[in-house]
Amino acid sequence: MGTKKKFAVILAGCGNRDGAEIHESVMTLYAIAKSGSSYQVFAPDIKQHHVINHYTGEITRESRNILVEAARIARGKISPLSDFDVQEYDILMFAGGFGVAKNLCNYAFEGSGCKINPDIEKAVRAMHSAGKPIGALCISPVILAKVLDQVTITMGQDPEAISNVKAMGAVHQPTHAGEIVIDQKNKIVTSPCYMLDSTIVDVANEAMKVVDALIAF
Amino acid sequence: MGTKKKFAVILAGCGNRDGAEIHESVMTLYAIAKSGSSYQVFAPDIKQHHVINHYTGEITRESRNILVEAARIARGKISPLSDFDVQEYDILMFAGGFGVAKNLCNYAFEGSGCKINPDIEKAVRAMHSAGKPIGALCISPVILAKVLDQVTITMGQDPEAISNVKAMGAVHQPTHAGEIVIDQKNKIVTSPCYMLDSTIVDVANEAMKVVDALIAF
Repeated sequence: MGTKKKFAVILAGCGNRDGAEIHESVMTLYAIAKSGSSYQVFAPDIKQHHVINHYTGEITRESRNILVEAARIARGKISPLSDFDVQEYDILMFAGGFGVAKNLCNYAFEGSGCKINPDIEKAVRAMHSAGKPIGALCISPVILAKVLDQVTITMGQDPEAISNVKAMGAVHQPTHAGEIVIDQKNKIVTSPCYMLDSTIVDVANEAMKVVDALIAF
Repeated sequence: MGTKKKFAVILAGCGNRDGAEIHESVMTLYAIAKSGSSYQVFAPDIKQHHVINHYTGEITRESRNILVEAARIARGKISPLSDFDVQEYDILMFAGGFGVAKNLCNYAFEGSGCKINPDIEKAVRAMHSAGKPIGALCISPVILAKVLDQVTITMGQDPEAISNVKAMGAVHQPTHAGEIVIDQKNKIVTSPCYMLDSTIVDVANEAMKVVDALIAF
């Protein structure tokens, strides 16, 4: 197939409140496989910022590792982000979840003044410099807004997030459920997913549209 | 819509080696929502048998609770299985994962002589007695084989699993990726999912076929 691409997918743990949003992560893998492309999952081999009990919403005393937890979504087929080699992949993609804003950067605490994990920043810069496409769902476009110059992205309709990415120098396009935003010049595709009060069907549809748009570059 | 049904979905944690298989769980929720039906997720409020590091495959010293971990897949919208009321739901469905065989019963350790968690057994018997359909993916048909009489199910192609469910009194139909088995008399639909060396696309397709067949009863 002419559209068969090799995707690197970066996950931020396993669970929407402290790690990777699971529906967005699984739908990303599904959309890639459905397109006839292949994927390798990556995560940084570092501790999560914290662990949240997803039933009660309370912070627990546990300590968990992002790579180890993301391996649950990847069914063990995962590599440490330090092994990521830009030469080996055609497209980079991020799923969302609070773990992106807590583990891959500290956006959840510092907003527009956030710092990005060095391996994440390196991967994004390397892909962008090589002219390769990058996709980002939900909250993860904040990473692209922070690392790259004047990218056009979406954060859905969230006023605070929109204000923050504009302060980082990004151009913001609001979206509703099922919509994606394509930055043709920077080869970046983003969609709001659970930044909105979306359904799992919206998330699946957006993941498929994002993957198709990334492949079409 | 005439096909709109209320599903109860039972998960066994979060992660294929010690809990619910995440792809099967998410694809179950997706298939239900895509059909226009609704779901409520349930899990028993008990400790997992053990915790496995999904990156290394090693058993860890951690202790985790099935309801709390399954809440990661359900995004917090989950109820303890003790709250399950057969009157409120049209269809019951199980995703797979080793957690089914370690947490919802002890099939992983006792094979055909396994014991089923009392709340799981109660839910299955109540649905079946009420003439309501039950779906089960991957390893979870072992629960139906053990609790109900002479059900027709699939375990894919695994010789040991096939031998075990036959010893429990079930009728076995082998399947390949993408196939489902319908027991018309008992209103049971099963599919092999990751009991085979399947892809995430196979799992999605099977989940959608199972949900459609359950709704069609």
